[in-house]
Amino acid sequence: MAKDVWRIGVAGLGTVGGGLVGFLAEAPTFAPVGARATIVAVSARDHARARDFDISAYRWFDDPSALAADPDVEVFVELIGGADGPAKAAVETALRLGKPVVTANKALIAKHGAALAILAEAHDAPLLFEAAVMGGTPAVKMLREAMVGDQVDAVAGILNGTCNYILTEMETGSRPFAEVLAEAQRLGYAEADPTTDIGGFDAAHKISILAALAFGCAPNFDAAEIEGVDRVELLDIKLAHDLGYRIRLVAQATRADGEISVRVHPALAPLGHPLAETRGALNALFIEGRRIGRIFIQGPGAGAGPTAAAVAADIADVMTGARRPVFQAPATTLKPFAAVDAAHRVGKAYVRLLVKDEPGVIAAVSETLAEVGVSIDSFLQKPVENAGGVPIVLTTHATPESVLLKAIERIGALSQVLEPPRMLRIARI
Amino acid sequence: MAKDVWRIGVAGLGTVGGGLVGFLAEAPTFAPVGARATIVAVSARDHARARDFDISAYRWFDDPSALAADPDVEVFVELIGGADGPAKAAVETALRLGKPVVTANKALIAKHGAALAILAEAHDAPLLFEAAVMGGTPAVKMLREAMVGDQVDAVAGILNGTCNYILTEMETGSRPFAEVLAEAQRLGYAEADPTTDIGGFDAAHKISILAALAFGCAPNFDAAEIEGVDRVELLDIKLAHDLGYRIRLVAQATRADGEISVRVHPALAPLGHPLAETRGALNALFIEGRRIGRIFIQGPGAGAGPTAAAVAADIADVMTGARRPVFQAPATTLKPFAAVDAAHRVGKAYVRLLVKDEPGVIAAVSETLAEVGVSIDSFLQKPVENAGGVPIVLTTHATPESVLLKAIERIGALSQVLEPPRMLRIARI
Repeated sequence: MAKDVWRIGVAGLGTVGGGLVGFLAEAPTFAPVGARATIVAVSARDHARARDFDISAYRWFDDPSALAADPDVEVFVELIGGADGPAKAAVETALRLGKPVVTANKALIAKHGAALAILAEAHDAPLLFEAAVMGGTPAVKMLREAMVGDQVDAVAGILNGTCNYILTEMETGSRPFAEVLAEAQRLGYAEADPTTDIGGFDAAHKISILAALAFGCAPNFDAAEIEGVDRVELLDIKLAHDLGYRIRLVAQATRADGEISVRVHPALAPLGHPLAETRGALNALFIEGRRIGRIFIQGPGAGAGPTAAAVAADIADVMTGARRPVFQAPATTLKPFAAVDAAHRVGKAYVRLLVKDEPGVIAAVSETLAEVGVSIDSFLQKPVENAGGVPIVLTTHATPESVLLKAIERIGALSQVLEPPRMLRIARI
Repeated sequence: MAKDVWRIGVAGLGTVGGGLVGFLAEAPTFAPVGARATIVAVSARDHARARDFDISAYRWFDDPSALAADPDVEVFVELIGGADGPAKAAVETALRLGKPVVTANKALIAKHGAALAILAEAHDAPLLFEAAVMGGTPAVKMLREAMVGDQVDAVAGILNGTCNYILTEMETGSRPFAEVLAEAQRLGYAEADPTTDIGGFDAAHKISILAALAFGCAPNFDAAEIEGVDRVELLDIKLAHDLGYRIRLVAQATRADGEISVRVHPALAPLGHPLAETRGALNALFIEGRRIGRIFIQGPGAGAGPTAAAVAADIADVMTGARRPVFQAPATTLKPFAAVDAAHRVGKAYVRLLVKDEPGVIAAVSETLAEVGVSIDSFLQKPVENAGGVPIVLTTHATPESVLLKAIERIGALSQVLEPPRMLRIARI
């Protein structure tokens, strides 16, 4: 017989937790599948802290694992964050007791998703994490549920709103990275310690999860190659724009010949391309399937409202009684993927050099590229005020990455080249 | 205990049916949720017809209702099409027996969805129709499952690939409607009888379904206002482009003040807007939720591969054992929506006139608009070779639709205006 009421325990009362409490207070009859969800208990670090939402009706737990274990809690919602520590312990406690878990914790799933999936499936407990990726935009549901009749070859997109906000502001305001970051911190768009976002780690957590869902492998955060936006210079944004591109932090996972590549790095997307046109804190994702073709999805990637709505949708899924593998295949059969050999990667690139203002420089650079086997697509030299040198920028035709790196090393060694070349990839999407 | 194998009966072996048979033949171990799907029986109009896929391994039924009733068939897949007749009878037969039904039949769901949902829920049988809207792009799943933690105020998009292909070709090739339609028919992008597509009825079926999912109402195809693309002239496409727009067949459903509006009509979308940039046979949809904000999704809306993949995803959903209402709320509580009063609608418009080439015409038109209370946003007069008159085009600021229609009537009556004015709405998205 179907249950009428599901009793929810919420651990973590930050932005998303507050959003969820607020949502269920506004919609106490939330019964999307005929049954009703009601919060019965909460947990957070500090009971006494002032909050702009009322938790007096819920039982309080100092220890999230005790909340997860409480017999009155039927569904455990984990919004604590962090890959290890109390979040992991509490999720494990709930799963061991066969309780459904809903979490927004991308680091936890990216790093421990495989082990947690085994635990979840062994105890027949759903483990859902829609809110971990793209907030209220249902990327997880799309990959886990809608693409099962297809074979996905690639997912690629913009998964960190903070980085996209910074890149957009740098371009539209013609302001340097540090200035925009400081403003984003003031406005609350970036954390006081922004490393997780701007270092690309948050996007890497998310793409590791999407890769596991897309390809039916274990999430393998350690195999992700990660470069953040902290080294993106305003000069590159301007020069890229002159060449017809915008710089975006692209997270991508691709599968080819049995190898899987998971990467996060700044990349150039052509003006007019949906990723280039994804601005501010928006997130966006392409999913490429053999039968379905390309699906593009774009929406807000964070925020209390969207993320709490994603948690609520997961709670509704729990209430339907659905059972499916956490990652496209039974967890005991998942293998961590073999990271792709960089030599197998082929792509176009943008290379910026600071060179001496003297004759023969372009010839020397061109010859070096030709020797190594890199073919030039476009060349741009613009008068830019720059102490002690002239910036030139070139884009290449598709080149094996190993060849490209060798070429850049050789160019960097030329006497006319004044600083290490800056290479950015051109997005292959 | 979870079932290991689910036995599927497929009625209808056209493009999508063939795609599904091909898919399950290629992937006979299709076990997306741990269980396996296998076709056991098929039905179509003509057993003897030559097919490029093999059906010899399946039991044959001439009558789809007999197939639906067969005790060996556990899941009934309806790919016959048509709102009434054998498709409806067979779906009802399956639901009455408590068998899950998966269908790609948009006309059936748009016209009889409310009654079928009551039948489905009374017999605890899932009724799924992802493939009915946007092919492999999971619009139905997004609205039915991912938005349950939100309140949707609007859905709007491009839901008919044939119309979008025609409009795109007219613009890029500078060719008239009839020529592009004839080519589309030759290439198989349009049916021999194209009325369902170009008349806007197919898009109206789809938006009626999405409205029911978005707002938790009964689908009410009869309340949809429908205008197709058959009256879109190349001249309007060109003039709209000069003004910074592309013409798209926009299907939209909005809810405001308890009223619901479901409409399909050609509308102008600004260049650079995702709908304007949705080209060829692609489909696209905006979903606007109060908490989540705007989600945009774009992908192929038809074709054997994508649509069969959507059917397969629905079969996987059946296998999970999930139970949820067909349309966001228990079917017995669904109400058909009250159509919005046109007087309540406000929007911008494009108006094209053919006028006498004489002084004072623009003054006369402007005065007439001012008298009725319509404010002009832009005016364009271009030398266009046209027998016996000069085309002028104007766009208005936001105006109540009743006022706009009165203004157009008055302008049409001016002695200097040579033919009935052509009005197109500017998309509000």
